[in-house]
Amino acid sequence: MSPERESGTSLDVLPTPSLLVDLDRLEANLCRMQQRCDRLGVALRPHVKTHKCVEIARRQVELGARGITVSTLAEARTFADAGFTDLTWAFPVIPSRLPEAAELARRVTLRLTVDTPEGLAGLEAAARAAGLRLHALLEVDCGDHRSGVDPHSERALELARALAGSPHVAFDGLLTHSGHAYRSRSRAEAAAVAEEERSVMAALADRLRHDGIEVATVSVGSTPAMCAAEGLSGVTEARPGNYAYFDATQVTIGSCQVADCALTVLATVVSSQPATGRAVVDAGALSLSKDAGPEDAELPSMGRIFRDPEAGVLEPDLRLTALSQEHGELSAPRPVGERLRILPNHSCLAVACFDCVQAVRGGEVIDTWTVHRDR
Amino acid sequence: MSPERESGTSLDVLPTPSLLVDLDRLEANLCRMQQRCDRLGVALRPHVKTHKCVEIARRQVELGARGITVSTLAEARTFADAGFTDLTWAFPVIPSRLPEAAELARRVTLRLTVDTPEGLAGLEAAARAAGLRLHALLEVDCGDHRSGVDPHSERALELARALAGSPHVAFDGLLTHSGHAYRSRSRAEAAAVAEEERSVMAALADRLRHDGIEVATVSVGSTPAMCAAEGLSGVTEARPGNYAYFDATQVTIGSCQVADCALTVLATVVSSQPATGRAVVDAGALSLSKDAGPEDAELPSMGRIFRDPEAGVLEPDLRLTALSQEHGELSAPRPVGERLRILPNHSCLAVACFDCVQAVRGGEVIDTWTVHRDR
Repeated sequence: MSPERESGTSLDVLPTPSLLVDLDRLEANLCRMQQRCDRLGVALRPHVKTHKCVEIARRQVELGARGITVSTLAEARTFADAGFTDLTWAFPVIPSRLPEAAELARRVTLRLTVDTPEGLAGLEAAARAAGLRLHALLEVDCGDHRSGVDPHSERALELARALAGSPHVAFDGLLTHSGHAYRSRSRAEAAAVAEEERSVMAALADRLRHDGIEVATVSVGSTPAMCAAEGLSGVTEARPGNYAYFDATQVTIGSCQVADCALTVLATVVSSQPATGRAVVDAGALSLSKDAGPEDAELPSMGRIFRDPEAGVLEPDLRLTALSQEHGELSAPRPVGERLRILPNHSCLAVACFDCVQAVRGGEVIDTWTVHRDR
Repeated sequence: MSPERESGTSLDVLPTPSLLVDLDRLEANLCRMQQRCDRLGVALRPHVKTHKCVEIARRQVELGARGITVSTLAEARTFADAGFTDLTWAFPVIPSRLPEAAELARRVTLRLTVDTPEGLAGLEAAARAAGLRLHALLEVDCGDHRSGVDPHSERALELARALAGSPHVAFDGLLTHSGHAYRSRSRAEAAAVAEEERSVMAALADRLRHDGIEVATVSVGSTPAMCAAEGLSGVTEARPGNYAYFDATQVTIGSCQVADCALTVLATVVSSQPATGRAVVDAGALSLSKDAGPEDAELPSMGRIFRDPEAGVLEPDLRLTALSQEHGELSAPRPVGERLRILPNHSCLAVACFDCVQAVRGGEVIDTWTVHRDR
């Protein structure tokens, strides 16, 4: 990453709450996942919803990412405006937003996601109206049971045939999200989810090819599965997002160590009362989100506190026990005015609380990046 | 409220997800709380963190509110810029933000909140540096055990004396927040919390007056307590916020009926899979927050769905069972493309997900208001 500022601003003078990214950890995380994908023989198409930062997405592409993944049309537009030309909107098409999507597809390659006949009908209507073919992927449910067609169903085959046969669609292949890897409690469990995801997708792709349907893309991924996957034969690309920052949830799953977590929220102790034996920081639900993290975490909390952020060491017992809108309740007293760095349960949601993130190296802020959180 | 647009835009053409406020319910909620405060003989100083809307705060003042309450310095600045001149920042002073607070205090009456000796020392230093007296309230813990001094402690008396005696402070009185009223499960329970809050605060104010300390303001409040309070003798003002919109949590507590809830999230069904018997809407954690609502709600959910939004009638069984960043999982299949209105668990946090709110009357959008969610 090439920071704009020559010399840094000390963290000590930053207003709180602030969102911080440790540049060295970020860089290590980005490199590690790119190398992993290279070794596994798949393209990396990182999900930018985690960071919502143009600067970080650019670095991901520099390191070898083949396009990016977005979660909303607003995100697609922002990154298209910033010069990204190969985007996958990994969300079932929203019928009413398709005219806007078609407009965007005039200037970039925008791959849309379809998992229902109604979605396809909407896509075809929008493509017809715009006078162009729209790129589409068929979303498959590989076990998360959120969205996507049942890969073993006749419906999956019918929808794939309809997509591949539509004159209004450029059918690119298959896409899935192993969200259930988030329920893993070890790398071995996450690896099993990744293998199930791979085999389901490879089998469906083969089945479609057997029927004469071209399946160029077989896209999988979640950070837990991609940190654990041992082989991805039959898969062409992966779309993890969280790996750029990691968080307390990923530590519990075993995707990373605490020392890999790149994102923290800087907060100040604003109240500490002898009567309650507690303290309060100025980081609540609007700095960390209300994500409660894994129920079976070693120390259930709404956020853990770093003892030594540079070394990546947490306070063993201190934690946030409850969050209201702007208050975070600490489990023990701390000196008023002390500045703490908090490890969020879910970095993607913490990011979306802030307008910008401070890029930090060696205890100094050396750049400030916009978080594109517009809806 | 005086909408800017003459004729409305149909809800049917609004992009989803969108945040909607029903203007008639909002107006009724605002009037009812003002009347309640008038009847109870206390000033209303509404907390604007719920709506973050200048237009709504203006209406609250028109209806009789005496000043407003804010949760952050950014909010204070926004509302000061919009012409509000009497603000209480109901959050323990953040030492590093005090120079900025003092700057703001040059142009508006900004009441700061102190609950520690360190907070007072910071306040005095900032006042000295700015060459002005800063208005301050002593925050008291009336049972929520989040922030605020123990009202029965020597520390409370000492801090009150120090505030009242400081040449740098204009001591305005006492402030508390009955956050524990949110743990009530009936109006009767909330009324008991309100009475405890009242009696604790009135007793401490009397004690201080007995010691010769002037206590002009005795400020209390939370929406559940203020919807249930039967008498507020000894109290001078109340600071509820949520009452403007209400939400599923307030329904469970008994603060309101479903038909009083003014805020909904408009979403579209984007996926519905026969294999899972579920559906997905385009409103996830970044539209509703991850607030899980009351554990003992009649139907635990991440959001309830309106069957008839105009009549204020919910679908009896349909609910959001899980939220990921942009996906909301519905408990049953629904037609793809159907537009649903969702009742959030926590309206304050849902509001903070959006840049603007659509002001709706009779199924039409007649105005769009900025949500000032800058940090």
